[in-house]
Amino acid sequence: MRPSGRSTSQVRPITITRNFTAHAEGSVLVEFGDTKVICTASVEENVPRWLKGKGQGWVTAEYGMLPRATHTRNRREASSGKQGGRTMEIQRLIARSLRAAVDLEALGEQMITVDCDVIQADGGTRTASITGAMVALVDAVNSMIEKGTLKKSPIKGMVAAVSVGIYKGEAICDLEYLEDSAAETDMNVVMTEEGKMIEIQGTAEGEAFSHEELLAMLALAKDGIADIVTMQKQALES
Amino acid sequence: MRPSGRSTSQVRPITITRNFTAHAEGSVLVEFGDTKVICTASVEENVPRWLKGKGQGWVTAEYGMLPRATHTRNRREASSGKQGGRTMEIQRLIARSLRAAVDLEALGEQMITVDCDVIQADGGTRTASITGAMVALVDAVNSMIEKGTLKKSPIKGMVAAVSVGIYKGEAICDLEYLEDSAAETDMNVVMTEEGKMIEIQGTAEGEAFSHEELLAMLALAKDGIADIVTMQKQALES
Amino acid sequence: MRPSGRSTSQVRPITITRNFTAHAEGSVLVEFGDTKVICTASVEENVPRWLKGKGQGWVTAEYGMLPRATHTRNRREASSGKQGGRTMEIQRLIARSLRAAVDLEALGEQMITVDCDVIQADGGTRTASITGAMVALVDAVNSMIEKGTLKKSPIKGMVAAVSVGIYKGEAICDLEYLEDSAAETDMNVVMTEEGKMIEIQGTAEGEAFSHEELLAMLALAKDGIADIVTMQKQALES
Amino acid sequence: MRPSGRSTSQVRPITITRNFTAHAEGSVLVEFGDTKVICTASVEENVPRWLKGKGQGWVTAEYGMLPRATHTRNRREASSGKQGGRTMEIQRLIARSLRAAVDLEALGEQMITVDCDVIQADGGTRTASITGAMVALVDAVNSMIEKGTLKKSPIKGMVAAVSVGIYKGEAICDLEYLEDSAAETDMNVVMTEEGKMIEIQGTAEGEAFSHEELLAMLALAKDGIADIVTMQKQALES
Amino acid sequence: MRPSGRSTSQVRPITITRNFTAHAEGSVLVEFGDTKVICTASVEENVPRWLKGKGQGWVTAEYGMLPRATHTRNRREASSGKQGGRTMEIQRLIARSLRAAVDLEALGEQMITVDCDVIQADGGTRTASITGAMVALVDAVNSMIEKGTLKKSPIKGMVAAVSVGIYKGEAICDLEYLEDSAAETDMNVVMTEEGKMIEIQGTAEGEAFSHEELLAMLALAKDGIADIVTMQKQALES
Amino acid sequence: MRPSGRSTSQVRPITITRNFTAHAEGSVLVEFGDTKVICTASVEENVPRWLKGKGQGWVTAEYGMLPRATHTRNRREASSGKQGGRTMEIQRLIARSLRAAVDLEALGEQMITVDCDVIQADGGTRTASITGAMVALVDAVNSMIEKGTLKKSPIKGMVAAVSVGIYKGEAICDLEYLEDSAAETDMNVVMTEEGKMIEIQGTAEGEAFSHEELLAMLALAKDGIADIVTMQKQALES
Repeated sequence: MRPSGRSTSQVRPITITRNFTAHAEGSVLVEFGDTKVICTASVEENVPRWLKGKGQGWVTAEYGMLPRATHTRNRREASSGKQGGRTMEIQRLIARSLRAAVDLEALGEQMITVDCDVIQADGGTRTASITGAMVALVDAVNSMIEKGTLKKSPIKGMVAAVSVGIYKGEAICDLEYLEDSAAETDMNVVMTEEGKMIEIQGTAEGEAFSHEELLAMLALAKDGIADIVTMQKQALES
Repeated sequence: MRPSGRSTSQVRPITITRNFTAHAEGSVLVEFGDTKVICTASVEENVPRWLKGKGQGWVTAEYGMLPRATHTRNRREASSGKQGGRTMEIQRLIARSLRAAVDLEALGEQMITVDCDVIQADGGTRTASITGAMVALVDAVNSMIEKGTLKKSPIKGMVAAVSVGIYKGEAICDLEYLEDSAAETDMNVVMTEEGKMIEIQGTAEGEAFSHEELLAMLALAKDGIADIVTMQKQALES
Repeated sequence: MRPSGRSTSQVRPITITRNFTAHAEGSVLVEFGDTKVICTASVEENVPRWLKGKGQGWVTAEYGMLPRATHTRNRREASSGKQGGRTMEIQRLIARSLRAAVDLEALGEQMITVDCDVIQADGGTRTASITGAMVALVDAVNSMIEKGTLKKSPIKGMVAAVSVGIYKGEAICDLEYLEDSAAETDMNVVMTEEGKMIEIQGTAEGEAFSHEELLAMLALAKDGIADIVTMQKQALES
Repeated sequence: MRPSGRSTSQVRPITITRNFTAHAEGSVLVEFGDTKVICTASVEENVPRWLKGKGQGWVTAEYGMLPRATHTRNRREASSGKQGGRTMEIQRLIARSLRAAVDLEALGEQMITVDCDVIQADGGTRTASITGAMVALVDAVNSMIEKGTLKKSPIKGMVAAVSVGIYKGEAICDLEYLEDSAAETDMNVVMTEEGKMIEIQGTAEGEAFSHEELLAMLALAKDGIADIVTMQKQALES
Repeated sequence: MRPSGRSTSQVRPITITRNFTAHAEGSVLVEFGDTKVICTASVEENVPRWLKGKGQGWVTAEYGMLPRATHTRNRREASSGKQGGRTMEIQRLIARSLRAAVDLEALGEQMITVDCDVIQADGGTRTASITGAMVALVDAVNSMIEKGTLKKSPIKGMVAAVSVGIYKGEAICDLEYLEDSAAETDMNVVMTEEGKMIEIQGTAEGEAFSHEELLAMLALAKDGIADIVTMQKQALES
Repeated sequence: MRPSGRSTSQVRPITITRNFTAHAEGSVLVEFGDTKVICTASVEENVPRWLKGKGQGWVTAEYGMLPRATHTRNRREASSGKQGGRTMEIQRLIARSLRAAVDLEALGEQMITVDCDVIQADGGTRTASITGAMVALVDAVNSMIEKGTLKKSPIKGMVAAVSVGIYKGEAICDLEYLEDSAAETDMNVVMTEEGKMIEIQGTAEGEAFSHEELLAMLALAKDGIADIVTMQKQALES
């Protein structure tokens, strides 16, 4: 039923390449099938002004797409003079998801900014971003421990994300572009490694969805995310 | 347990005042307790450029807050030169929710813009906005039928929204500001009058939430929205 | 002669509702006939950077219109990314008028920002704004005295405003939209309660106006403003 | 009494140099004492979109100041990314004043843009701008007649402007910077060559001003403008 | 003498990977040592408005850097709301260089936009960008020929670029970051495959440079570019 | 061969008028034929934030054109909300050129901003700007010495600029607009008074240029700049 021949519960081949670029404290290329995102985590010994003196750190995220990551060229946001609503929405989602993985007080007055830049898009760029950003974040934290600016890791556990949806009447996991653009419902789920929920954002594209459909999608998301967390951990161990 | 003494499932007193201002085709003041939003629906016999000649209409939404709708004054977005990420996120949510209520082909090449402007905020501004905007949209459609620019209503049914959350360990419905700022989880649910889901956006503010907590919140949302749809219909009949 | 049947010197029915919204130190809904403006005064224990350490306070104002306050929808300034020239011109006028009512040194290093947001427009939005903003300002000052951040009121006296014009060859007072759009001359006058002038801005829309016409308009303005100050004082006493 | 030794009614030495730069259809350097403004009028055989097909033309104006036209350097507006409120207010005033001098229907579907750029500021830049812009406008119109794109002049008569104010308790005409910054009241008056009023904008800087003071200022303005119109005409004849 | 041990005339190892991403008509990853740039060429059957109906095509370029391509994170230009002067300068240089390689009339009314996005920076990003963009451009042109929207190639010949400079008193070729930041003079040279000059931009960073130094740098540039053109051609043949 | 009848090596009549406007520490009107630029140098006892405490000063530049300095009116950059790429490129070039003339440590923690505003353009605005800005800079430095904020001049020597190009197959010096728009190659050269190079920016507009052509252009530039430096010095002595 699926264009790729995948089963309804099957995620795409996922690759997580650490140390992808040279300068960032954490740098990951994450691939969910043909979706490719560069995630870099940058450490600053400083916090935003509104957090100064509060004895805690901050984690934030920015998201971008190269103009030709997509089938047709999108206008460069730097040139149009502002980030679009979709970009804003996604980077806020990534940032909230990452903060859920970190004990901000244990981080101390330091800030980590994770940049997620999509170099090729084929659906699921936000869930791939969260998944790769989490690994870059762990690498950045480890570099801080090595450098001595952190005593112990403030990471509370892994966080990962996957998209699920209703496609041709059935719940499927990890939608690629062809599925995404034809799906009746599209839902992004972010979970902890224990399978508890951090973010859930479901949208009926055509028909409204039922409680049963929601449950079916959530079950797929839970299994998919468990698989993805395993891959995150393997990448971090290699 | 709740600051207001409400039961966990109880929504705030809701008032829907139609024809609140004079010029718009639909104009509603919606109040969810102390949250007050002016929703106006404006009709244009025209569609955005990218829809020209496709034989369908469009429904969109914009959201704003008066600078002193909140406890402390927020900077005016018109003066800072851009809409913030939260504003963008909310107006996209309102617009998608409204489009789910409308048969865009039946609307023909016409556009309806719904402006939701919060004049007083006490939690739940986005769900109040969707609820009031839906009524303003119906009024605008009826004015088009009267005027003869529409033959019959393209409205597929009512859409309404409510926030739910986990507060002091329990699921509650329609959070006011005091609850919202202390909630462990905050979820916005948009449903059709048949109780099917259009949008669901849940965020763990502190702890991740469990499947059981999600189900408890959804049950409250379903009942709350059913009550709210009843109020929408009463308002439209009066 | 006038569309409303008013005499040439008659102002529209004016309503001043205090405590219109909950959070601001001063919050007023002012209505000049069908023109309705929400005026909120917000206190900050702080001054703009260029005033720091000079031992005086500041009063400023911002002006906005809801997109559908007018007959056809105007583009939202927050979305277009800048405030238009008309908006800038009006908010500068409001701010200067309010500062004329306040002894800035007696205010100490504190700032009051008055937001005037038009929710329904039918001519005279700037004069209604000044009139309502003055009342909100007094309420804010009184809240500061109650709170103990001010010892005594720095208000030097009331300030109010009205529009006058030449319409069908005759001077009239307090123009509504129908008159405004057909007037040969349009003039906004801001006065103290003693009838002295703070601002006077007259514009020939069609024909240039004579000295005699100016005098006739000023006489109407003086009487109109005297009436409006009486209403401001009644509102403050109630 | 005045820093320059001028009598209260005396305007500064005024110079109007036509054909100051090479490319514009009208190009004037106007000097009011040490205030120097370059005014260029540019003709376009086209009108703004909202005027297309209405059988009339348009006249508009833009105003700017070189960053170091003033005692201390001002930030370049092109670099800060927006025009300030003062700039907007002034260019709207110039544009309205010029349109009062032109029969827009007789202009046909053509547009004239007058740029007023202050190269040295010593008070009264807006009134000098209007005075110089009027001469540049006449030159541009004459070039159109010569070129054959206009049959006869749509100019209804000359328009000129002067500032007046209350300084050390007395009404004076054509304020220079030292006077302007110390004036109790500052008023800009724009009149036709017949002495009728087009714009009048008075602001109490310190104390409110009385009816008598207004009359005294207007009398000075009328005489000052009569002198200035004479100089405009002499410049056009030379 | 050079940090890398390279001879003064030696360029870094250069890699040109075609078809690096999936969607663009031309997509190249170009590496000059540790400098890595993604160059994508996008075809549009359309030209900018000012070229419509003139019977010729257009080639343009945009340049960006991922925020953490550099040693410390740079602010994202999309988020700061404008492209900096350096970005503008570079993308104008790339665009002019590419246009020098194309017969715009032979291209017909079509436009090619080349995006150069630096994912890792180690000096020479603009010369690497031009070199990679040229290959992406050829691929895009070939895809147009295959697709039938071009009959024959409008490419007049290869164009490539290299940086040269004066470092520790000697002329060197293809500066890496360590050399670039310490160089007395920095020059970017763009040449055709015949060794003729298209662009030359030299800047004295510290001391002014002599005619002899200029000649020495140009000689190195000519040889370096000849080597680079060979690599471009090999990449296109593979 | 040249429209003006000049020999290939002949620069246009150059005029340098000091003290052109009243307020700036250095103020120069520079004319290269019909190209006229106002250059003002403004002193601030302060440096940009990133230089604080480093014991050195800063010299920067901004460039602008009056909208009607050119044959047809250009949109005002302040009104369009951003400086174009050409403007950015030019002001960066001017700033680098001026900094090459100054010992920034000897300047101490002070900043000089030079504004170059073109009031009439006929080719070569950037080289005229650099030439005039240098003189304004010297005047500003001298005013600092007089005022006592500098002990001795940090100027290392004069810097001047000229454009050269290939026009009708021959190298020519100091191109006016007619030549510039028809030139095959256009090159801007900035040199010290000793004839060493500070900036060289050459662009092939049509055909690529040869090494011999480059040498011919450089020879003309050297002689032209020597003449221009003489004029700078004469202006400073008068």
